[in-house]
Amino acid sequence: MEPTDDRRAFGDRVRELRREKGFSSQEAFAHHVGLDRTYVSGIETGRRNPTFDIIMKLAHALEVRPAELLDTLD
Amino acid sequence: MEPTDDRRAFGDRVRELRREKGFSSQEAFAHHVGLDRTYVSGIETGRRNPTFDIIMKLAHALEVRPAELLDTLD
Repeated sequence: MEPTDDRRAFGDRVRELRREKGFSSQEAFAHHVGLDRTYVSGIETGRRNPTFDIIMKLAHALEVRPAELLDTLD
Repeated sequence: MEPTDDRRAFGDRVRELRREKGFSSQEAFAHHVGLDRTYVSGIETGRRNPTFDIIMKLAHALEVRPAELLDTLD
């Protein structure tokens, strides 16, 4: 799937928060959140279109409020 | 699809913003955002699991920042 600007911005935010929370590798974070590593990679590069439920799962795993995942988007 | 608490809260927020923006009916809003009315109804009752792209579409149609759609969620 081709990335969009919004999905790229979302992916960048997920990567930023992942690193902030100490998950230096996508592998470790994917294991923690219960998703496949390639899916996490796809989200972070804007090539995946995650559902609301997945966005909630990411927020809970990153221990941030869900709105924080979208706060770089206009 | 069975609603979840998070999806219900999201649906309530969409309904709240829809009404605030003057779309008294789901029909009028569905037409405005380019979605089927039954899909909008499903989102507002938590029975649909919208993708990131749909969430962006809703935010743009409601003229709010995407994070505002999730700001009632913990």
